[in-house]
Amino acid sequence: MTRHIHVIGIGAGDPEYVTVAAIEALNRTQVFFAMDKGPAKSDLVGLRRAICDRYIRGPGYRFVELPDPRRAKDAEYREAVSDWHAARARIWATAIAAELGPDGVGAFLAWGDPSLYDSTLRILDAVTAEIDISYDVIPGITAIQALTARHRIPLNDVGEPVLITTGRQLRDRELSGSAVVMLDSECSFRPCPPETRIWWGAYLGTDAELLVAGTVGEVGERIAALRADARARHGWIMDIYLLRFRGVV
Amino acid sequence: MTRHIHVIGIGAGDPEYVTVAAIEALNRTQVFFAMDKGPAKSDLVGLRRAICDRYIRGPGYRFVELPDPRRAKDAEYREAVSDWHAARARIWATAIAAELGPDGVGAFLAWGDPSLYDSTLRILDAVTAEIDISYDVIPGITAIQALTARHRIPLNDVGEPVLITTGRQLRDRELSGSAVVMLDSECSFRPCPPETRIWWGAYLGTDAELLVAGTVGEVGERIAALRADARARHGWIMDIYLLRFRGVV
Repeated sequence: MTRHIHVIGIGAGDPEYVTVAAIEALNRTQVFFAMDKGPAKSDLVGLRRAICDRYIRGPGYRFVELPDPRRAKDAEYREAVSDWHAARARIWATAIAAELGPDGVGAFLAWGDPSLYDSTLRILDAVTAEIDISYDVIPGITAIQALTARHRIPLNDVGEPVLITTGRQLRDRELSGSAVVMLDSECSFRPCPPETRIWWGAYLGTDAELLVAGTVGEVGERIAALRADARARHGWIMDIYLLRFRGVV
Repeated sequence: MTRHIHVIGIGAGDPEYVTVAAIEALNRTQVFFAMDKGPAKSDLVGLRRAICDRYIRGPGYRFVELPDPRRAKDAEYREAVSDWHAARARIWATAIAAELGPDGVGAFLAWGDPSLYDSTLRILDAVTAEIDISYDVIPGITAIQALTARHRIPLNDVGEPVLITTGRQLRDRELSGSAVVMLDSECSFRPCPPETRIWWGAYLGTDAELLVAGTVGEVGERIAALRADARARHGWIMDIYLLRFRGVV
């Protein structure tokens, strides 16, 4: 008798991006643990509820909101993240022990896929040091695949590599080939040479979806303006883009 | 009245990795165009038939096998690929015009996701120059997500980039951080420093799945032996691995 946790990737925005494996795991779950926060909170809670309402066949499941420890603003980034993960692990272990019976099944839902720029798996790994649980991972459609699908483009050039990176890292690196950029709040594509090709998407798979493609020279400023406007209107934004460089930049 | 083509990602091996969007597109399709070849052919045809049998609700769909032009062995790689795509585009255009009525719906099924090391979208783009079609792309779970899900690991280190690459490219590059390697028939991880961490998987999501994790020093030779053995037994192999480097190598 061990408590079991599903870590379920529920895809990037479109409820139809949910997989059959995710639907099965949703239906085995008694308690969904959630830690929504920030300006996107109400929209994300709504999307998640819509997925549960649509795919869970029986009643009787429930949501448990976990408090989120404050992230130290002045510590070094990596250290702050590590302390924050440890504090979360203690909160999660306590909640799992309190909310699930000894053979209960709980779940954490991750937007996109749980492996990509998401801390759930790192924290659960730390939880296993505190209480006895088993867990498995159900993959989900990432924003990367949603972006390429909506633009109908390959991610890679023939036989060529692709870098998955963040806005922060993009600004510090020499680049060539293709790069897909996530978590960029500063339009870090702007210093790229104007002939760099860009495919940008926001709110992918939702009714608010925005798509722009062209070169940085042609559409870069338009993306920046659209992004600022959409962010102000919705109160939050989730966006992603693919760059293809000519030579090394 | 335009012929429509769905390019459907059907996930990486496990029939439960299929999305709801893919199931809907499968059910709208009248003709599935397929170009299986090589030693994996019968197993892959079987997996695909299993997905269609399981998820398509009505009868009346059919498969059309497309001949595959021979790929020139002696030409320069990129040029050979380009000629081969052009030859395929002509064959596809002819088949689509012959097999689909003027408002018919066809599909190409891609393992994993159609955007990743797959030529379907490039060829379809060339097809649009020959005949009038519309097409859309349904994303799928890639082998990358299947690998990280089955090993229950994050793809990236906190805030760090990840390179998606091929065995061919891995051998020529300076590397740091994390790299996920696809299409590697030569165990190109072997020259990596022995402390490099590796998570390897083959036949992911199927009954034949193999998983090994450790450092290149500890498990590298075991992976190479397992891989050779499995390949001989099945007649083919599809595998993938994630590397994390200590420093720059």
